[in-house]
Amino acid sequence: MTNRLVGIAASDGIAIGKAYLLTEPDLSFGKISINDPEGETNRLLDSFEKSKEEIQGIRDHVAVAVGDEEAQVFDAHLMVLSDPELTEGIKNEITNNKINAEAALSQVANMYISMFAAMEDNPYMQERAADIRDVTERVMSHLLGLKIPSPATINKEVVIVAQDLTPSDTAQLNRQFVKGFVTDIGGRTSHSAIMARSLEIPAIVGTKTVTQTVSEGDMIIVDGLKGDVIINPDEETIASYQQQRLEFEKLQAEWQKLKNAKSITKDGKQIEIAANIGTPKDLVGVNDNGAEGIGLYRTEFLYMDSEDFPTEDEQFEAYKEVLEGVNGNAVVVRTMDIGGDKELPYLDLPEEMNPFLGYRAVRISLAETDMFRTQLRALLRASHYGKLRIMFPMIATVNEFRDAKAILEEEKEALVAAGTPVSDEIQVGIMIEIPAAAVLAHQFAKEVDFFSIGTNDLIQYTMAADRMNERVSYLYQPYNPSILTLLKHVIDSAHAEGKWVGMCGEMAGDQTAVPLLLGLGLDEFSMSASSVLKTRSLIAKLDSKEMEKLADKAINECSTVQEVIALVKEVEASIAK
Amino acid sequence: MTNRLVGIAASDGIAIGKAYLLTEPDLSFGKISINDPEGETNRLLDSFEKSKEEIQGIRDHVAVAVGDEEAQVFDAHLMVLSDPELTEGIKNEITNNKINAEAALSQVANMYISMFAAMEDNPYMQERAADIRDVTERVMSHLLGLKIPSPATINKEVVIVAQDLTPSDTAQLNRQFVKGFVTDIGGRTSHSAIMARSLEIPAIVGTKTVTQTVSEGDMIIVDGLKGDVIINPDEETIASYQQQRLEFEKLQAEWQKLKNAKSITKDGKQIEIAANIGTPKDLVGVNDNGAEGIGLYRTEFLYMDSEDFPTEDEQFEAYKEVLEGVNGNAVVVRTMDIGGDKELPYLDLPEEMNPFLGYRAVRISLAETDMFRTQLRALLRASHYGKLRIMFPMIATVNEFRDAKAILEEEKEALVAAGTPVSDEIQVGIMIEIPAAAVLAHQFAKEVDFFSIGTNDLIQYTMAADRMNERVSYLYQPYNPSILTLLKHVIDSAHAEGKWVGMCGEMAGDQTAVPLLLGLGLDEFSMSASSVLKTRSLIAKLDSKEMEKLADKAINECSTVQEVIALVKEVEASIAK
Repeated sequence: MTNRLVGIAASDGIAIGKAYLLTEPDLSFGKISINDPEGETNRLLDSFEKSKEEIQGIRDHVAVAVGDEEAQVFDAHLMVLSDPELTEGIKNEITNNKINAEAALSQVANMYISMFAAMEDNPYMQERAADIRDVTERVMSHLLGLKIPSPATINKEVVIVAQDLTPSDTAQLNRQFVKGFVTDIGGRTSHSAIMARSLEIPAIVGTKTVTQTVSEGDMIIVDGLKGDVIINPDEETIASYQQQRLEFEKLQAEWQKLKNAKSITKDGKQIEIAANIGTPKDLVGVNDNGAEGIGLYRTEFLYMDSEDFPTEDEQFEAYKEVLEGVNGNAVVVRTMDIGGDKELPYLDLPEEMNPFLGYRAVRISLAETDMFRTQLRALLRASHYGKLRIMFPMIATVNEFRDAKAILEEEKEALVAAGTPVSDEIQVGIMIEIPAAAVLAHQFAKEVDFFSIGTNDLIQYTMAADRMNERVSYLYQPYNPSILTLLKHVIDSAHAEGKWVGMCGEMAGDQTAVPLLLGLGLDEFSMSASSVLKTRSLIAKLDSKEMEKLADKAINECSTVQEVIALVKEVEASIAK
Repeated sequence: MTNRLVGIAASDGIAIGKAYLLTEPDLSFGKISINDPEGETNRLLDSFEKSKEEIQGIRDHVAVAVGDEEAQVFDAHLMVLSDPELTEGIKNEITNNKINAEAALSQVANMYISMFAAMEDNPYMQERAADIRDVTERVMSHLLGLKIPSPATINKEVVIVAQDLTPSDTAQLNRQFVKGFVTDIGGRTSHSAIMARSLEIPAIVGTKTVTQTVSEGDMIIVDGLKGDVIINPDEETIASYQQQRLEFEKLQAEWQKLKNAKSITKDGKQIEIAANIGTPKDLVGVNDNGAEGIGLYRTEFLYMDSEDFPTEDEQFEAYKEVLEGVNGNAVVVRTMDIGGDKELPYLDLPEEMNPFLGYRAVRISLAETDMFRTQLRALLRASHYGKLRIMFPMIATVNEFRDAKAILEEEKEALVAAGTPVSDEIQVGIMIEIPAAAVLAHQFAKEVDFFSIGTNDLIQYTMAADRMNERVSYLYQPYNPSILTLLKHVIDSAHAEGKWVGMCGEMAGDQTAVPLLLGLGLDEFSMSASSVLKTRSLIAKLDSKEMEKLADKAINECSTVQEVIALVKEVEASIAK
């Protein structure tokens, strides 16, 4: 039966393929008395054998597709499976107590897991507990005849269906086979949505029920342009979407021609379109899509992908690689933005009632300055190798900016005194993502070199609505006249002091927002690399003077977001003509 | 040894007295084999007897001081203590197993507690589990020779020292004996601080360490004017503070003379000083302090003090009582503000990652309209008995206001059609507590009858800092130029449309803020009743034209909160001359 679901369009494009359910199987079982210990033992050994083969396969695949380091965890799993103490223990349990293999496995494994997990001072043994848990689940799945999905082993074209995708899931995805994905939860700014755009895979998030509606192997169409999921479509529908996919691919080919072009409006105004990145690996996408530099380098991934604080040298290498990898363009590096929804296992942060309103980003940097100084030294040393701009996140008061900048100056002086080459042309700016900073932009503009507007947070604070919370997601309104009014004040204040303003939130790549932002006078648009070319194409169709009028009208005449959207739709219609 | 602690001045005045520690005693014990079961049994019975006497005393005291209903829980405790099954069980445990009374008590009580607590479908039995737990703790404290503090039984003058005070603690406080209190945690807007001002008891919160620094019976001075706690002061210090207390009492007597006066500045501009209340009981303080009406009636207490949703009639009676109890003055009633940090046991709200940015207040009212309509009908019916103003909390968009007002109009029409008398002069306004509403005040002003600025939330959203979170409390800056800029826009926008603006956050009664707010043109100041007279006294000393200049200067020339405070200090110095 054909079925249709509507979600949030998270990444452009159309995918058609069979569903691969990336969901946790139900591994519950009953404890049963058995009469045939030998048969039961054979079932156990058979499941061990299947698990070994499976893990070996995943291991080999990950080693090639992802990297040797990521494959190592599977070596540890193979060692657990080959440990005679474990198998003998379970076999004894079956034979002596006449219980089924599932119960025996669970009992013995749990004993080891709690023993190792209790060694709180020994991280090595605690990791062994995690390994035994993973392996036990896999053996259990074979005993129960269930599948544990492993994205890394996918070897035919599929559309992934999941509740949500974790960073580790997305790291294992093979773009050759994974044609699209659909999730139950998330929004345009959730991790999985950002990853989808970065991988350039069509994706729809926040459907609420896709994992319940779709069965393994169902044919599904993912319309990442509109947010529609069509389940088990008829031939005619498939043909129609295949046609749409062709047209979209044609459009993409058109955009591709703009790769080496500048970003210029119809009436000749030049702006800059840059890309947001998380790691040096993302440079490939940046250059493939012709981005004019990096508008946001999120350095927290350096911290989150690490077992401990990254050293000054590790950071220096990463920053240098990015600075050298952008053909002389500028790189805006944001200092560590940990806290909120981003945790570090090795940094003990307090439990907070409202983490988004809590101890995060520059608030941590200014309180725990050792970590901050290490990062600044690495940045200052790297500045020699390119065009560096340093940006502090979550600045609420002018004093916070002064304090952060003073620390930067201290570290710079010390490095220069020690003879280390440091660029003299580093711009120092702030994120505008807290309403207080937006309102006071005219004061900040006197002291900073630039602003970059972080709309994801600015919108959620201005509307007092957590963007991750579905019950209030209707209040996440980028085009609300209140947001546009703040943006105008920020941009006008910067220009009055001769400073430039960028935007590195999701809004910068949002095709409905671009005409408004152009009209407000935004200088730099930074976005997912995959959005750069289509935005450059849109900019070329817009007249900057007309967009100024559009923005003025939105701010002066509209009282609701619906009115603003209606205004922009008029513009879109006039372009289409 | 004299010792000094600094906290946050939460309620005016100076208290001198002996410390009464309202902290949980450590009831841990060891299980011991004993040889004298008879002696041990006697210890047990003796502790039961002492507990009975103690609970009887608390029960009688609470019945008189608080109410019969509140005393009933202690009747249940007495029944537990008289239950022979419990005592026999413990005695058998002592005699048969030769263990100490503490171990026997704990073992038997825990058995009953887990048995009753497991009856999840039976709330009556679950309450019994709680009763047994409370009683067991009390008996245990007597066995261990420790004191369980009970604020209700305090019968000599003391200063209470606690980690924090719960609503139930404060309900039991006897103002005759409790001269002041000091807590480890909290800020000026925490529950205990608001209660202290409502009870007019000097208080200091957020000292972090007072419960560790002070011992039972230490002499302490609470300087609620400055936020200083002096522990074991010498005679000279005591004498000096006694003098200061006298002076403060003289000042209070001066203020008292303004009880029936209007609130008029030195140059003859009249403003309005109203009070914030939570229940009709608070009317006493309102009238004793000469407040000119109610600027904020927090109706959520009607919901929070109830076992189920309050009925329309229950609400009608409460609203009518307040409307009739203010000598014809206006009453601004805020519709239900549940969610955030306020929960209802009978309303199933989702667990949220950031409740302050979540599903709360009018967001709930617009989604679960039955509850909202019931409240609106009760208000409309009560409007016949006084001067009612209805206010919607947490409005972020113009559409939310329109939707809420449309529901109000529908209910009004239905009541009028049914012949119920409803006032035709009800003003309908909104709280300005979300930055988006403040920024868009010029649009809202065309549609509302008034604004009331809720600074507690407005500041925390504008600064993106949870006011309850100590790590970021330095960012809770009422006088930050960004906040003043928003306030100016809100007030100017309302006046341009001929509407009035009040403020019902803590800032309205803050003596440093008052000169600025007067200068910004605020029409109505609503605050704790205990702050009304001192604010009226301050207003009488201020020139409204000069304060306008002060506010302009703060907004146009200051970039930090420190600069603003310095400006206000100049004003304070010139008044003192």
